[in-house]
Amino acid sequence: MSKTVSDIGEFGLIDRIHKLIQKEGIKTPGVTLGIGDDTAAIKPREGYELLVTCDCLVEGRHYLSGLIDPRTLGRRAMTVNISDIGAMGGLPLYALVSLGLKAETHVADVESLYHGFLQELNPLEASIIGGNITKTEGANFVDITLIGEVEQGKLMLRSSAEAGDAILVTGYPGQAVAGLQLLQNSKTPQDVRNHPLVQAYSTPKHRAREGHAIAQSGLAKAMIDTSDGLLADLGHICKASGVGAEIFQNQLPLSEALNQEAGQMELDPYDLVMSDSDDYELIMTCPVESIPKIRSFVASISDVPVSEIGRITKAKEKIQLICPDGRKQPVTPTGWDHFRK
Amino acid sequence: MSKTVSDIGEFGLIDRIHKLIQKEGIKTPGVTLGIGDDTAAIKPREGYELLVTCDCLVEGRHYLSGLIDPRTLGRRAMTVNISDIGAMGGLPLYALVSLGLKAETHVADVESLYHGFLQELNPLEASIIGGNITKTEGANFVDITLIGEVEQGKLMLRSSAEAGDAILVTGYPGQAVAGLQLLQNSKTPQDVRNHPLVQAYSTPKHRAREGHAIAQSGLAKAMIDTSDGLLADLGHICKASGVGAEIFQNQLPLSEALNQEAGQMELDPYDLVMSDSDDYELIMTCPVESIPKIRSFVASISDVPVSEIGRITKAKEKIQLICPDGRKQPVTPTGWDHFRK
Repeated sequence: MSKTVSDIGEFGLIDRIHKLIQKEGIKTPGVTLGIGDDTAAIKPREGYELLVTCDCLVEGRHYLSGLIDPRTLGRRAMTVNISDIGAMGGLPLYALVSLGLKAETHVADVESLYHGFLQELNPLEASIIGGNITKTEGANFVDITLIGEVEQGKLMLRSSAEAGDAILVTGYPGQAVAGLQLLQNSKTPQDVRNHPLVQAYSTPKHRAREGHAIAQSGLAKAMIDTSDGLLADLGHICKASGVGAEIFQNQLPLSEALNQEAGQMELDPYDLVMSDSDDYELIMTCPVESIPKIRSFVASISDVPVSEIGRITKAKEKIQLICPDGRKQPVTPTGWDHFRK
Repeated sequence: MSKTVSDIGEFGLIDRIHKLIQKEGIKTPGVTLGIGDDTAAIKPREGYELLVTCDCLVEGRHYLSGLIDPRTLGRRAMTVNISDIGAMGGLPLYALVSLGLKAETHVADVESLYHGFLQELNPLEASIIGGNITKTEGANFVDITLIGEVEQGKLMLRSSAEAGDAILVTGYPGQAVAGLQLLQNSKTPQDVRNHPLVQAYSTPKHRAREGHAIAQSGLAKAMIDTSDGLLADLGHICKASGVGAEIFQNQLPLSEALNQEAGQMELDPYDLVMSDSDDYELIMTCPVESIPKIRSFVASISDVPVSEIGRITKAKEKIQLICPDGRKQPVTPTGWDHFRK
């Protein structure tokens, strides 16, 4: 029978995780003291600012343990944090992982979770430098603090959009919410696991490399990731910048898979693109004349499309959808609110 | 009726917390971007290393909501993290707070929690620069990541103890565990709330200023906090340094309150001093001749006593208790293990 965390105890578990990280993780420059003392210690590079973010996934709330395996959960939890670093124009360096685990959690599952973390961190030469493990009686949780860096003067804020800016978005937002619906509506989730929309939900891609390249270009003004959904996060830019936006409906990027699935679910695909979705694309604003250069910066490192979807306006916090027939329709960003009834 | 977090929603709650921090928190130098974007940003000082730690308190596991009010819980959660920074010889700068909250949690209680955080951070000129709030179905949790700094070359490790070193400890370890027992055995917890042992449990003191002063002196070798208990944490020093230790029982610091209460509970007070307890004192080792200087460094900033309790030996990972009659008794560090059955 496979061992549970209560079989090997807290210190036994920490020991196994430590060895796993030493064996399979990367040694990131700047770590002067890793796991094993009261704190970790790092020596930041001169000429850089550090970026710090934390995000927590709770069982039953952000993931359903029956629908996601531990390694995929690990990838996902790390990706959502990497995305935040990328949205500032930075790249990740150091992660701290805080886990709340029920006593009956399998040790092998915890190790798979860490394999997932490392699968996302290793290619970026980022590493796990510390963390905490505690027993919980309720839902398991994975709480990650991620530290990254960005060259001084290259920080990308959500508050820098200006009227007249073009609005760009990477990839195909909305796929994750469609994937989740597909998964939840399926009687045999196993059968749809490899569907591109389900993949978009379970192993979302961060755009940290793209965000970093865009920040390096110095051509974009405001940037944010779409973790709350395209419309909600565009709303965050508008609020922070004191501007409004127009979205050209027929320029919204629509993947073939999303289009098909929306048809079968009898939903408007554009509603899905703009809705609260668990994608981690980037929205940015820039002067219209910079679009080709930004596209070529991104194309030099990635094949992720960059779509021009609208314009920033002076109409403070007002977002309008421009329909193909020219009609203007006000839209209200909602965004995923954990507590709203 | 007082509002719950589900009444005002996630964004409403974040907004209130943000305003509370702006109004009542300190502005720590080096914060280039605070709460409100995808990440916070900091510009570390040259000549310093950053220390990073995280620690999580789970309802029902680390605290009983009926026995601790939210403000006290906030102080406690922050103190345990500050203690880790202090045990490295550093001082705290920036905190990220990740909360898991049930929908029915009162907004006023969340605000009290933040008042508790700030009560510990403000005197050290440290601040909250970010965080995360999520709904949980099970137990509430408070997960804090704390970033501090230490001058280069002043980092205090647990792996630097050497045979012949004196072992020192600050304050009176063991009081917290006695206080918890008092609280749990009391039919009316309200009545014992102001008992010094209960206070030691509910609002433990960190020794960050003392730890920083000791690190500045350059006279100590190894240092750790007693978060797992005196014996367990001395065990961590021994393991990391490849040494052993002898403890002089009659030199263990015993507070009057602990001595009295142990008598009433018919417990050996020395067992309580050495046991798994939720105190946040410091253990350090140093050459015997440095003891007076270390004491005077600490005395210059604090009235916390520093007791000499033993010697580091060559006997790898073996700890012996030297009884008043000269008998040597091997003792085994256990330490609080969350998962052990």
